[in-house]
Amino acid sequence: MIAILITIMVLEFKTPHEATLAALRPLLPLFLSYILSFIFLGIYWTNHHHLMHITERVSGSVLWANLHLLFWLSLVPFTTAWMSEHYHEALPVAVYGLVQLGSGMAYSVLYSRIVRHEANTKLHEAVGSDWKGRASHVAYATALPVAWLWPPLSIGIYVAVALAWLVPDRRIEKKV
Amino acid sequence: MIAILITIMVLEFKTPHEATLAALRPLLPLFLSYILSFIFLGIYWTNHHHLMHITERVSGSVLWANLHLLFWLSLVPFTTAWMSEHYHEALPVAVYGLVQLGSGMAYSVLYSRIVRHEANTKLHEAVGSDWKGRASHVAYATALPVAWLWPPLSIGIYVAVALAWLVPDRRIEKKV
Amino acid sequence: MIAILITIMVLEFKTPHEATLAALRPLLPLFLSYILSFIFLGIYWTNHHHLMHITERVSGSVLWANLHLLFWLSLVPFTTAWMSEHYHEALPVAVYGLVQLGSGMAYSVLYSRIVRHEANTKLHEAVGSDWKGRASHVAYATALPVAWLWPPLSIGIYVAVALAWLVPDRRIEKKV
Amino acid sequence: MIAILITIMVLEFKTPHEATLAALRPLLPLFLSYILSFIFLGIYWTNHHHLMHITERVSGSVLWANLHLLFWLSLVPFTTAWMSEHYHEALPVAVYGLVQLGSGMAYSVLYSRIVRHEANTKLHEAVGSDWKGRASHVAYATALPVAWLWPPLSIGIYVAVALAWLVPDRRIEKKV
Repeated sequence: MIAILITIMVLEFKTPHEATLAALRPLLPLFLSYILSFIFLGIYWTNHHHLMHITERVSGSVLWANLHLLFWLSLVPFTTAWMSEHYHEALPVAVYGLVQLGSGMAYSVLYSRIVRHEANTKLHEAVGSDWKGRASHVAYATALPVAWLWPPLSIGIYVAVALAWLVPDRRIEKKV
Repeated sequence: MIAILITIMVLEFKTPHEATLAALRPLLPLFLSYILSFIFLGIYWTNHHHLMHITERVSGSVLWANLHLLFWLSLVPFTTAWMSEHYHEALPVAVYGLVQLGSGMAYSVLYSRIVRHEANTKLHEAVGSDWKGRASHVAYATALPVAWLWPPLSIGIYVAVALAWLVPDRRIEKKV
Repeated sequence: MIAILITIMVLEFKTPHEATLAALRPLLPLFLSYILSFIFLGIYWTNHHHLMHITERVSGSVLWANLHLLFWLSLVPFTTAWMSEHYHEALPVAVYGLVQLGSGMAYSVLYSRIVRHEANTKLHEAVGSDWKGRASHVAYATALPVAWLWPPLSIGIYVAVALAWLVPDRRIEKKV
Repeated sequence: MIAILITIMVLEFKTPHEATLAALRPLLPLFLSYILSFIFLGIYWTNHHHLMHITERVSGSVLWANLHLLFWLSLVPFTTAWMSEHYHEALPVAVYGLVQLGSGMAYSVLYSRIVRHEANTKLHEAVGSDWKGRASHVAYATALPVAWLWPPLSIGIYVAVALAWLVPDRRIEKKV
């Protein structure tokens, strides 16, 4: 489903009617936002992949936690397109961060459901405290009010969080 | 495929050209309808997941019962968008319920095909009589004429049925 | 991928701006064409499912035969939408049949590749001569020129072929 | 995901409002570009299939190399649509080649990651030096500046590279 969301964002790129570099320039904010959201969704994809790899049995409660995460992620194409059109205005930038915060918290819920359901001490030991996840939540929650002060700073925070997660979580990999 | 249908509904969210809260307000009915249909499709996803988990062999007749269910579900993005634009008018609200009723009955057919084909007494014992499914059919069938009296009541019935199913069916889980 | 093609056809249903039955009427030809194409793609889905179930090893040549089939099927949403707008004119009706003929022949190629590659005598015995496939090719090839005489007759032939295939191919099922 | 990208390209085919052959003619450049991109994506599909078949364990670094490839491939529907509208102009033709070059190099990175990670000498022996990949990179890199001299020649190079890859890579198949 994350793959489908990525491709839906591609649909936003309207074919320019001119064959000049100037005709591509209006697409630049969307293109940069697309890269940010692509990395954002990619992070969930890889982490989700590791998580599901460990999970042996998918219960109904895990399925709904999963759907809850997908609900937030499904709003990403919309917030990406809106922010890219108004990247210097508070509301669209804050809404983008709100969806990222919601996704992050939904992932934490999914993660704790899997750990609890599975009594998966192996996983728990591997990951330890989810400090990186918690730090991201704090960063997003900070970026929301900041959008009314200076939107580019909020976007800077989103980029920083994305870069921090680009380093794959070797903790799960190493132990498993 | 249910994942694709969910993402198709997301395509309905047209990016507003203003960066204000007022520009988001026209999207509110669509957003609420989206949540309702998301839960609706999510219910089929989780139940379908449990059902397929039990099914050992997919015969042609099960495949077609499956396609029949997907046919009804594939109409959900259309009925969601239409109802969200006219949520206080009888026909779109009734058509939304009609597709929900059709999906529910198609699921019952799929379910009984699997039970019959598999002579799956284990599954049959686990689920017992499908009273929740039948009650939903009755609720939907009631909501259809109600739409001509007072559309919000029909929508209330749809919401109630969705909430009733949000509680995952532990019967299958427990036994398997 | 067939699931994606089915959902792409759903995108053609533009939400009517009125809440009346009259507003739904212009969608009727598209809806009927959608049902026809849904059954058409569903047939490939179920047959493809049985075929892949038997195939043990997917070689490069089978992958390309598969892609060739998907190429033809990928044109179905376009021909469905075009025919539904002009169902009483020769060219769109004939083009619809042409894509069906191409899909049918691509399926035959895929089928023979799998039989040859696998030296799959078990499969060969199960299916025997592909008379139903050949009869369909003849029916489609007949429907093409007929479209210039009387388009509804061509559409009737498409419907008849679809109905003939709705009966699942029990030959493979029984033997395997 | 490659299947989704292929179907997204199909969305570009706007249904003509006339039922004549003349109404189909404006779609011809898009149709030919679609075939080229379909083969292009099909090549990645089959090669990717073989590659993943050999890979036993998907590490985080392989997942990201995979996402990097998908990023480039996700731009193909856009470049296909743009080039098809301006196939006799330098920039769109060069941008199409740039995305093909990026995809090719991303595939090489993915390939070398898998070989290195797996210490997959079996795979390494099977494929030997990746001369075909390198030759394609050179061809694409040549086609970029050529687009400013004579765009059709660049397109000719793209077609030639696609045809060269249509022959499936039997080296992996034979050894495995």
